[in-house]
Amino acid sequence: MSDTPGHLTGLIGSGIGPSLSPALHHREADALGIRYLYRRFDLDPSDHPGDAFGELLRAARACGFDGLNITHPYKRLATAHLDELSPDAAALNAVNTVVFGSHGAVGHNTDWSGFARALDSGLPDAPLGTVVLLGAGGAGSAVAHALSTLGAGSIHIADADPDRSSELAEAVNERCSGILAHSEPMDHAGMLPKPLLDRADGLVQATPTGMAEHPGMPIPAESLRAGMWVAEVVYRPLRTELVRAALARGCRVLDGGRMAVFQAADSFRLFTGVEPDAERMLRHFARLTETEGTNTRVRG
Amino acid sequence: MSDTPGHLTGLIGSGIGPSLSPALHHREADALGIRYLYRRFDLDPSDHPGDAFGELLRAARACGFDGLNITHPYKRLATAHLDELSPDAAALNAVNTVVFGSHGAVGHNTDWSGFARALDSGLPDAPLGTVVLLGAGGAGSAVAHALSTLGAGSIHIADADPDRSSELAEAVNERCSGILAHSEPMDHAGMLPKPLLDRADGLVQATPTGMAEHPGMPIPAESLRAGMWVAEVVYRPLRTELVRAALARGCRVLDGGRMAVFQAADSFRLFTGVEPDAERMLRHFARLTETEGTNTRVRG
Repeated sequence: MSDTPGHLTGLIGSGIGPSLSPALHHREADALGIRYLYRRFDLDPSDHPGDAFGELLRAARACGFDGLNITHPYKRLATAHLDELSPDAAALNAVNTVVFGSHGAVGHNTDWSGFARALDSGLPDAPLGTVVLLGAGGAGSAVAHALSTLGAGSIHIADADPDRSSELAEAVNERCSGILAHSEPMDHAGMLPKPLLDRADGLVQATPTGMAEHPGMPIPAESLRAGMWVAEVVYRPLRTELVRAALARGCRVLDGGRMAVFQAADSFRLFTGVEPDAERMLRHFARLTETEGTNTRVRG
Repeated sequence: MSDTPGHLTGLIGSGIGPSLSPALHHREADALGIRYLYRRFDLDPSDHPGDAFGELLRAARACGFDGLNITHPYKRLATAHLDELSPDAAALNAVNTVVFGSHGAVGHNTDWSGFARALDSGLPDAPLGTVVLLGAGGAGSAVAHALSTLGAGSIHIADADPDRSSELAEAVNERCSGILAHSEPMDHAGMLPKPLLDRADGLVQATPTGMAEHPGMPIPAESLRAGMWVAEVVYRPLRTELVRAALARGCRVLDGGRMAVFQAADSFRLFTGVEPDAERMLRHFARLTETEGTNTRVRG
């Protein structure tokens, strides 16, 4: 490796012990021959979260960090501690990547771009005429922004909290100055209106359901049709119940691995100015998870 | 490289742009397959040095640094900002290595151990019966401590400021509870008492004279006898005027490279818990300086 100063980055979040980000960033940097250190900062949110977060951000800047990834539960809080936001981070009111530069601390959001690149590369030519989006939280916002950027015809947002889905739909429509997004009712069993499911081209799952801590299905398996594509945001495990049900029904499926990898790849580029090899990162990811991902597994 | 968290270290000092420490630490870590980042913090001492230094130290600790090297002009000031001092750092009242651990920030001094190892390995079997030490500042203190630890018979300390040489001699004698060190007069031409020079086994040069910024000789060339060994602390350049004059007179010579390398090696071990290959670090050092060092150049 060269004698250049190298890159110093990290991740602030809570409960991030199992995060694959350090390994993903390290392995790609090694492959590129870039000296790189990615540190983990597990911050207890119960204790004055704003103060501790702000202090850590200032300390990292003083110590010459190039940037930091931000994850749950600090993505929104971060926006208040930065000097500038990228247009996308401002639109989403959420930051997952901070870059320290001569202009100060600038917040970016690579969750949405990560999902957009994942969908684009993992399910190429997937029709986006009518898309159902489950979940209107942080991940749902990023996905809605990605779908609208990719030119979706209409986005139908359902959330256990109907106020959240209405708010997200309004925010999306305000940004595109049109009526692109709709809030959809969902009964307590997670059943969506049948006419919507019948005409949906695809469905994106952006709730926590399916994570190791929240097992289960966000909607009944009967909601899935063979002609429909299904994209999952959860990647721990890669094969969520939804992914397995969708594969069993013959759907084209995008698991959560690609989004996880592409958001990391986009952050890596922001931190270093170097374009990482996202396909190689996907192979690292597959090895790290030691799981047969569907669209995560890359041949060659 | 492995997926372990790696090591994060650095150097606080003033005017440290040309320091070889980052490259020395990086290359050895690379050779060992250890993920390692060594950052440089050039701190202007004119602006509330204590505050800025203390803040940086706290920030580095909060950001998960494993430790820091400390250099001019902060080695003494550092002692006031730490939770604990090693016995050697306490004795020398100077810290060049801080390790952050579960017990807090602990200060060490590897300048003296670096010189001791350099002398021991670079001039093996050099007689230590009567040793002349030029310079009673920070480097001189470290050298005196090393000489006393290595079992020198008597140490004769000369400094342009006779108060400094007296104080250092007293401090050395207090530590060894005997009369090991003596303060020696030096005229304004740097001439030392002839009887002392006639019986000296060796001479250590620990003043700034000979550095690129302070060219010249600390003592007249006539003071050197062929039977005498000469050790230089300055390593930029490696071939100081004194080193060249001593070689010309047929003295056994230890240039400043070995001390620079061994203090770095000792710090590396404190930071990582891994014993570096000091001989390999010497080869790196030789390549970095691209100079024909005398005892720095290692064969094989």
